[in-house]
Amino acid sequence: MATAVLPVTAATSSVEPLNAEQSDPRTLGWMQGFPPPVEKRITQPDSNFFSFPKLRWSVCHMRELLPTAAIPRAIDHYAPLPEALIASIDQLQFTPTGASTPISWHDSLAANYTDGLLVLHRGKVVYESYRGCLGPQQHHAAMSMTKSITGLLAEMLIAQGLLDESALVGQLIPALRGSAFANATVRQVMDMTTALQYSEDYADPTADIWQYSAAANPLPKPAGYQGPVGYFEYLMTVRAAGEHGKVFGYKTVNSDVLGWVLATVTGKPYHQLVSELLWQPLGMQQDAYVTVDGLGTPFAGGGISATLRDLGRLGQALLDAAQGKPGVIAPELARSIRAGGDKAAFAAGFSSLTGGSYRSMWWVFHNPHQAFAARGVHGQTIYIDPTADMVIVRFASHPVASNSANDATSLPAYQALAEFLMQQNSD
Amino acid sequence: MATAVLPVTAATSSVEPLNAEQSDPRTLGWMQGFPPPVEKRITQPDSNFFSFPKLRWSVCHMRELLPTAAIPRAIDHYAPLPEALIASIDQLQFTPTGASTPISWHDSLAANYTDGLLVLHRGKVVYESYRGCLGPQQHHAAMSMTKSITGLLAEMLIAQGLLDESALVGQLIPALRGSAFANATVRQVMDMTTALQYSEDYADPTADIWQYSAAANPLPKPAGYQGPVGYFEYLMTVRAAGEHGKVFGYKTVNSDVLGWVLATVTGKPYHQLVSELLWQPLGMQQDAYVTVDGLGTPFAGGGISATLRDLGRLGQALLDAAQGKPGVIAPELARSIRAGGDKAAFAAGFSSLTGGSYRSMWWVFHNPHQAFAARGVHGQTIYIDPTADMVIVRFASHPVASNSANDATSLPAYQALAEFLMQQNSD
Repeated sequence: MATAVLPVTAATSSVEPLNAEQSDPRTLGWMQGFPPPVEKRITQPDSNFFSFPKLRWSVCHMRELLPTAAIPRAIDHYAPLPEALIASIDQLQFTPTGASTPISWHDSLAANYTDGLLVLHRGKVVYESYRGCLGPQQHHAAMSMTKSITGLLAEMLIAQGLLDESALVGQLIPALRGSAFANATVRQVMDMTTALQYSEDYADPTADIWQYSAAANPLPKPAGYQGPVGYFEYLMTVRAAGEHGKVFGYKTVNSDVLGWVLATVTGKPYHQLVSELLWQPLGMQQDAYVTVDGLGTPFAGGGISATLRDLGRLGQALLDAAQGKPGVIAPELARSIRAGGDKAAFAAGFSSLTGGSYRSMWWVFHNPHQAFAARGVHGQTIYIDPTADMVIVRFASHPVASNSANDATSLPAYQALAEFLMQQNSD
Repeated sequence: MATAVLPVTAATSSVEPLNAEQSDPRTLGWMQGFPPPVEKRITQPDSNFFSFPKLRWSVCHMRELLPTAAIPRAIDHYAPLPEALIASIDQLQFTPTGASTPISWHDSLAANYTDGLLVLHRGKVVYESYRGCLGPQQHHAAMSMTKSITGLLAEMLIAQGLLDESALVGQLIPALRGSAFANATVRQVMDMTTALQYSEDYADPTADIWQYSAAANPLPKPAGYQGPVGYFEYLMTVRAAGEHGKVFGYKTVNSDVLGWVLATVTGKPYHQLVSELLWQPLGMQQDAYVTVDGLGTPFAGGGISATLRDLGRLGQALLDAAQGKPGVIAPELARSIRAGGDKAAFAAGFSSLTGGSYRSMWWVFHNPHQAFAARGVHGQTIYIDPTADMVIVRFASHPVASNSANDATSLPAYQALAEFLMQQNSD
């Protein structure tokens, strides 16, 4: 049941998948009724709950399928999100990458199987939409945007002097001294330039990601299972393949090693750190949560679920920092992320997002607007454009896991919206 | 793994169990470390997480062990709980039932393995204490106090004209027409005077409760398992034993049938009803949650976890209603609960709480103060004393499941506190 924990690419098929309207979980009636009829059930472990179109329901219901740990907000206050909605955004036209005719912003939402989309401009909500399984108060799986939160925490601990980015992981975590991570620096882990014998090709059933997922699955292990139990035991088994620091490799295990580092240097579990360093001081309006393995270890590589508006608050805080405003997130820290990582290493290890880089588990586009983003499979993003003073948060449940399937109709939309908003008068 | 879902009485033993200080989960170090050492792990399903002393940790961590559904609060406001603390309560003396010497209120907290205790008097917090695993913002298992919430929801739907207490369950839920519940009225289910072939003797390993628990367990069924899957399928198998309406029988299946009735007549899942009818209008400060079975069905008989203060808000709302104040809970409804159920039927079916009764899944003491309570195994209570204008909420993790093990040092304490508070001057 590898799908319990980590995402699966929808089976490639010559049949066109259901479109957004057809696959809307409300239309399909998943989990409706008391009890739901057998053919409408999405359960763990009997059904592949993260396969399309079931995932269009599951992304909003992770805690009902898996054990989770709370990421508490501050109990007695939250940060307001002022509104200045701009209705005409829906009519904004842009031309998708590789296309010859433009489409509207509105139509792009369905094309990308959007579940929720929030745009902040000059600190105010200018656009907000909920679809599919999502409402304003509901949580959605952040998937690998969790990694960016983990990377941000690392940056914050470095800024506080609690973590040394040049320290070797094996110095910090003795249990990892037999693994590939032993002689990797914290920075190499943060930027995913570790050299690992580890495949995360979801299309390959023999890829290491499935063994990782099996270890992490909180369900009882199959009879005769001899493998590692939980994230940490698995991480101890990862072997090196080459020299660290040369080539970018997008591998979730780095994020979970980083989560382990954060817990070790602070003595606090990951979910508590997310709460104390981000959710409480940023004034989130809702608790978030994170899935845990069978030993209660949070999934720092992909387990967080949160509301759209709270990720908007996170994005705005980073945007403010990137623009030099003092706050919970130090400006130097945002500048470090925004400056990006090693572009050559990135190009050597990643086939899309040409010209980009990866820094502290954030994607840096190195485009004219100096945009950077958190990204997660099936279309999740926090897209921060410092030049346009704009944050976009998208939750989605695209049939295809890889964001290369939606970048053509999302990245040009973000750029077009940025240019449109920059023409708006200040109020 | 029956213990995944329902409580287990601690094994009876001639050895004295660890006392509250010795069994404090912080002292024992459960789940400390990254990862926790093997002997400090509390996991599902390998370890019996609800056995003493592990349960002293588990009562605060149900969501980390089991899938859960959220019970959302209102997003943008909460009801204040004004404070007027009275420090001298700790020195209050009372004589436990059957004892010859008095003990102090303070010492009774450890004697009862208290995790949290809140006292409201005249609508203000006069006492608040957290111990063991619990803090003011943390959730604790409410255990069978969940039943009282379920019963309260039923009363509210009856008051709204959405539910007829004289309706037969088989008329409302066709799937139950072959079960003992078919010809039971909603009221008989609410008051647990159904006559069922069903044993809830936790000390008997062949008791039906274990089959119920096996059906409800969200983990995969063992190979060859032929039994029902989920709460609802199990409920369909319960057979009658005698005539409904004659004898009280404290059986959790009634609460889950009632939860099914509530969902069916409203078309809304149980957790949504708890949110819409109680958590939102009462201004709870935190979301609550409820464990779910493998089909996502909430455990209406015992699955809720909440914070101490939010159960204080619930108790205060019922107290206000019992005193005739209009509010979210109608005064007539509170009077119906407070008046109690059939005392003869209760005496015929329950060996402790002599002179009491059970009404709408609330325990009614029929004492001079007309107190009534929600109660859950291992010491959970919401104790409402309308005469003293007092609400007590206790979370606990007593080694013995049955409240008969802690009543001797808790019920006289509540009465003594009521009398003490009635002597206080109004402010």
